[in-house]
Amino acid sequence: MAIPLSIQWINNQLIILDQQKLPHETEYIALNTIEDVYDAIITMKVRGAPAIGITAAYGLALAAQKHDTETLEVFHHFVKKDAVYLASSRPTAVNLAWAIGRLQQVIQSAKTLAAAKAEILAEAKRIHQEDEEACRTIGGYALDLLEGRSRVMTICNAGSIATAKYGTALAPFHLGKELGREFEVFACETRPVFQGSRMTVWELQQSGVDVTLITDSMAAHTIGAKGVEAIIVGADRIAANGDTANKIGTFNLAILAAAYKIPFYVAAPASTFDLQIPNGKNIPIEERSAKEITHIAGQQVAPNGTKVYNPAFDVTPAQYITAIITEKGIIHPNYERNIPELFATVK
Amino acid sequence: MAIPLSIQWINNQLIILDQQKLPHETEYIALNTIEDVYDAIITMKVRGAPAIGITAAYGLALAAQKHDTETLEVFHHFVKKDAVYLASSRPTAVNLAWAIGRLQQVIQSAKTLAAAKAEILAEAKRIHQEDEEACRTIGGYALDLLEGRSRVMTICNAGSIATAKYGTALAPFHLGKELGREFEVFACETRPVFQGSRMTVWELQQSGVDVTLITDSMAAHTIGAKGVEAIIVGADRIAANGDTANKIGTFNLAILAAAYKIPFYVAAPASTFDLQIPNGKNIPIEERSAKEITHIAGQQVAPNGTKVYNPAFDVTPAQYITAIITEKGIIHPNYERNIPELFATVK
Repeated sequence: MAIPLSIQWINNQLIILDQQKLPHETEYIALNTIEDVYDAIITMKVRGAPAIGITAAYGLALAAQKHDTETLEVFHHFVKKDAVYLASSRPTAVNLAWAIGRLQQVIQSAKTLAAAKAEILAEAKRIHQEDEEACRTIGGYALDLLEGRSRVMTICNAGSIATAKYGTALAPFHLGKELGREFEVFACETRPVFQGSRMTVWELQQSGVDVTLITDSMAAHTIGAKGVEAIIVGADRIAANGDTANKIGTFNLAILAAAYKIPFYVAAPASTFDLQIPNGKNIPIEERSAKEITHIAGQQVAPNGTKVYNPAFDVTPAQYITAIITEKGIIHPNYERNIPELFATVK
Repeated sequence: MAIPLSIQWINNQLIILDQQKLPHETEYIALNTIEDVYDAIITMKVRGAPAIGITAAYGLALAAQKHDTETLEVFHHFVKKDAVYLASSRPTAVNLAWAIGRLQQVIQSAKTLAAAKAEILAEAKRIHQEDEEACRTIGGYALDLLEGRSRVMTICNAGSIATAKYGTALAPFHLGKELGREFEVFACETRPVFQGSRMTVWELQQSGVDVTLITDSMAAHTIGAKGVEAIIVGADRIAANGDTANKIGTFNLAILAAAYKIPFYVAAPASTFDLQIPNGKNIPIEERSAKEITHIAGQQVAPNGTKVYNPAFDVTPAQYITAIITEKGIIHPNYERNIPELFATVK
């Protein structure tokens, strides 16, 4: 058993796990061209903001190795064109633009073409390595917080396959397995897109972590019946006051945690914070297609003409969050004071 | 538009709505023999405890009309044999045994064969009529409680098609429509079996009630985003202290109602109370097949070997319930005092 990896750089080749085929087939595919990378991102063969950023970085570096020119100026031009192309694959993914930006930056100081080609690939590998280290650090902090608690609930897939390795909310379970600490994880199926059933159960099975699947509606009963001792979730965006946007259903769990008086943790890298946004009210909530709810696996469940409300995310107010776990440290309330402080003192 | 009926007695014929075909086909079928009735119950063409009881009563009466005998004694013997056969269709359905018992009782005093045959059919019609009246009364009380509140959330299908008419939790919406009072209903899809998507949305559409479908995980966000003002649910069993067993996911909603400080109502006929059970801890929770969660519409979603917890019901502690609405009156806290009191004073 091993922690599953969504991205690997092996023998100068980019190999990704095709997440669209999960959980029924575990298929790894080589991405040999920038077009392959673009396609893998738009068809969601790779998903999760950090994983998308890493894949795009390798894609840009891959294409750079093959650019046939003698001048640095033309090389810069080619890389810029590639960057624009890759950035258009999922324009809202913050990590994608950020990773591509880092690669474009690093070649500015290269004195020769060979140095530029070496540096762009080295930077992609650094981004990959840094994300793994950040997730491992988050896992370590989460293990500290979960000391003495082994039955933990989660939602969606803030997992290894959404990052370089370990994941964020799932990091303590994978890292715990490596360190000999056992957890009993309760994974909510995560309607409407079933990331819990399809990905989290599969991913934790691969690591040998004990995982039980429930529907989202079973959370309140399960916490009591199974003695769940903590809830841990990922985050899509965290406002300056700690209000946290994450997969729809997260706020439900936060309220249940408060009712049961068990801790509710958010695990996310520092890049998830948006300090420009004062609080959750300013986070826009994407609404998705009605068909995600009226149809299941291609079959219509609800009647014709069904009116649907399908928000993809919800915002958990900071008051429900026991602590926010980042690679820069654990943030406790008061968040309005402690979040800006962490970002001011730690680089 | 009209409130949909699951059972009708028309021209001496028993006509039922085939609920297995909902919501895609609205098909009414005639049940002409006791075997037809048995089959409709075990294949869940008719569902909902009150609706099953009414259908079984008509089934027994139907068969009784055709018994070819000259003596009351032989007739009683035939009816008893039929009753045992029908009771075996869904042995755990309390209303079924209760309805059949009433019919067997009523023929004891009949002096002639013709009188017995007339009485058994009349009693089936009375059971049918009484259930409609009970549901209409519950709807009226619920409308009183919901005075000034129009945006209401519900789960599962405590609806007209689970009873003679109107339903229990859905009664205020149907009755409100008849009386010119408009509601905006938010129906939770109700995983794992989708009674919300398949039945509640369809049923309220038939009545012309404004209904919006959400996944169960969207409840916390939707209450805030849409300004939901109350939650109303049905019940499978209510203990003497008010603890209420209902479809899994109900307890989730009760905790959310408390967090949002909006009322949480349980609507159920008096027959739902089990005064022999002191509190919810004594209510057994049925666990169902893992496949209900790992497979969707026949397709496997979760990986092979997925461990599943699939409780069909949860128990909402009485402290979360603002009021229990029955046809005998509205019960407010303190339930430990007021529930026995209502049953002692009202027949």
